Amino acid sequence: MARIVMKFGGTSMAGIERIRNVAARVKREVDAGNEVAVVVSAMAGETDRLVGFCREASSLYDAKEYDVVVSAGEQITSGLLAIALQAAGCKARSWLGWQLPINTSDAHGSARIGEIDTVALDASLADGVVAVIPGFQGVADGQRVTTLGRGGSDTSAVAMAAAMKADRCDIYTDVDGVYTTDPRIVPRARKLGKVTYEEMLELASVGAKVLQTRSVGLAMKENVRVRVLSSFEDGDTSDGHRGTLIVGEEEIDDMERQLITGIAHDKNEAKITLTQVSDRPGSVAAIFAPLADAGINVDMIVQNVAHSTGSTDVTFTVPSADLARTLDVLDKAKDAIGFASLVHDTRVAKVSVVGVGMRSHAGVASTMFTTLGERGINIQAIATSEIKVSVLIEEDYTELAVRVLHTAYGLDAEDAA
Amino acid sequence: MARIVMKFGGTSMAGIERIRNVAARVKREVDAGNEVAVVVSAMAGETDRLVGFCREASSLYDAKEYDVVVSAGEQITSGLLAIALQAAGCKARSWLGWQLPINTSDAHGSARIGEIDTVALDASLADGVVAVIPGFQGVADGQRVTTLGRGGSDTSAVAMAAAMKADRCDIYTDVDGVYTTDPRIVPRARKLGKVTYEEMLELASVGAKVLQTRSVGLAMKENVRVRVLSSFEDGDTSDGHRGTLIVGEEEIDDMERQLITGIAHDKNEAKITLTQVSDRPGSVAAIFAPLADAGINVDMIVQNVAHSTGSTDVTFTVPSADLARTLDVLDKAKDAIGFASLVHDTRVAKVSVVGVGMRSHAGVASTMFTTLGERGINIQAIATSEIKVSVLIEEDYTELAVRVLHTAYGLDAEDAA
Repeated sequence: MARIVMKFGGTSMAGIERIRNVAARVKREVDAGNEVAVVVSAMAGETDRLVGFCREASSLYDAKEYDVVVSAGEQITSGLLAIALQAAGCKARSWLGWQLPINTSDAHGSARIGEIDTVALDASLADGVVAVIPGFQGVADGQRVTTLGRGGSDTSAVAMAAAMKADRCDIYTDVDGVYTTDPRIVPRARKLGKVTYEEMLELASVGAKVLQTRSVGLAMKENVRVRVLSSFEDGDTSDGHRGTLIVGEEEIDDMERQLITGIAHDKNEAKITLTQVSDRPGSVAAIFAPLADAGINVDMIVQNVAHSTGSTDVTFTVPSADLARTLDVLDKAKDAIGFASLVHDTRVAKVSVVGVGMRSHAGVASTMFTTLGERGINIQAIATSEIKVSVLIEEDYTELAVRVLHTAYGLDAEDAA
Repeated sequence: MARIVMKFGGTSMAGIERIRNVAARVKREVDAGNEVAVVVSAMAGETDRLVGFCREASSLYDAKEYDVVVSAGEQITSGLLAIALQAAGCKARSWLGWQLPINTSDAHGSARIGEIDTVALDASLADGVVAVIPGFQGVADGQRVTTLGRGGSDTSAVAMAAAMKADRCDIYTDVDGVYTTDPRIVPRARKLGKVTYEEMLELASVGAKVLQTRSVGLAMKENVRVRVLSSFEDGDTSDGHRGTLIVGEEEIDDMERQLITGIAHDKNEAKITLTQVSDRPGSVAAIFAPLADAGINVDMIVQNVAHSTGSTDVTFTVPSADLARTLDVLDKAKDAIGFASLVHDTRVAKVSVVGVGMRSHAGVASTMFTTLGERGINIQAIATSEIKVSVLIEEDYTELAVRVLHTAYGLDAEDAA
């Protein structure tokens, strides 16, 4: 017997027919003798509908009341799944955020999960009752409904798995696992059997959007074995047979370990260059401090060699969605910074190679630069972390870069066409 | 300063534009210096949508989970109205059933309201914060969500008014008050300024569907001043200026008192006659006991004079919706009852004259029978209570009967066409 958390997204919960399929899938795990808690999203489109109502009611809506409104979507699906499970012959009940309770901070709209009380839940699971838990929601100080921010149901699932000391947290989604890169770009991309938390974090944060980044960070912190698998595929769900397992580095033995785990890309960056910034102490801080105050996430930063004039060019990237605000902030800070001109470009892409193996191997970055250079792809900026090398290139070259790097690092599947 | 409960139905809450209108209406009462709690229904159509989901998931749905699903509709509108009120410049917050809490019995799907804790609410109202309360929902034992049954929001409003010791409970609806009869049948029907709880109960239970019957009963028990008024009409809302006030008999002085308050009709009855039931002790009980066990509400009962054969015909009415089940129950009990044949007829209508004045006046029933007889309308059954006389007639004569009785009892407005 194992304890399993199963999480289903909005596409899997869109309509009663699909909810019935989810119930059948849950029943299989129950029939196999497992104790099961299911975390559910709202029906696809429902959260957008509810958020739309709030925005229409007031552009400056109260986050406390927003949470009351939008949390209703998961409340509805959790009740419906409990009904469908009972109809399938499983004992089941729903547990709303305030009922368990799932305690969170009082940062309404983007609350963080704290303590989850599992005393009542444990007793219910021991009675063979499947627990159906609405994702995305919690309660602050036992009093007011909170939500975790969009995509928060992944985080709810991982947090439940940690609190329940579950053996596994299975995230059912519309892909069948995590790939070495986007299979739409590289048909020979391979599905990964295992990936470490750190790698998944880097892959997720640079655009391989399978899991919400926050949920991976939480899984790492709480050491929760997470598995990503398809909700539209059948077959043996026991360990290692399907999907991708996301685990600690110690669980991946040397035989399995690759130098590079995957290639990620992200087209949602914008590049900004400030020319002739005066090359004195504090001038760089004058750029980035007001951006930080505005909550804008600056990613890659390159400061060019100082000109003989005593000034320097500074290039950095921000999310494209924040470009307008960034330009506004910089314009207001222009006198304090002191720069000649501002150039921006959204036709850029960030391509990254990720792998814990590179910690112990030199030459990963060099291989990347050589490979791209041979194809005439110009590198506009570089950023590195312990397990990642990222370059900024012209957007039109994205797919080519991903493909040649995938081959260069030996990631191509052998059996594919 | 007064304490007011305002209740808005699904039509008033259908969409953000209408919710904004409700907010404006609430703000007027707040600006007039009142402490206000607002009880809201789900958006028109939403409860049907959610009930449909439950039925689709399982025809034998668990009432506990049904309550989780369908209570979401009022949760959504209460959050949205709180946002709209804030946008209009009113302090406001929502209070879900479990938050106040509104304690109820654990009869899921048709729970009864018990104690309502108003300590936190009172403090919030004293701070000038409008309380927005989802109707129809409560919590059992502080643990599980309950609902009160369809139309339960009227009952929620009256229960809140009683718990808050409100000066008035204003039920905003799509009619501007309670009339002497259905104005679609009798254009000269008059709007009543005041009506007693007892009269309203009789009028509601025989088809003048303005308020849920249960809410009127509760208002009578708790002595809550209820007012019915239109949510689509503006003007002075202070006492006596708009709508119909539903109060205790002692609040209506003799000058205002009418012999007859109104004429109601109900076409949703079915008549059943069992012929040649043996005329012995216990034979009538053999008919009605199994119907009571099946939860079928028998209304009018007529037992004809015994035939010389020692048998009798028994006629009674049930709601048309329960006719099929009634026939089934009687068929199974046929041997125990012992009757020759069963005749049923749904082409009947019940017409009632209602008024507390008839307690002290003889001749009300006689006027009714004479008036109908003069028009050739045959009376198939008669039932009376202290403040009501009802007759069962052929359905085709309903409108004619209502019209002639309205005139006979002097209820026609003088100034209408």
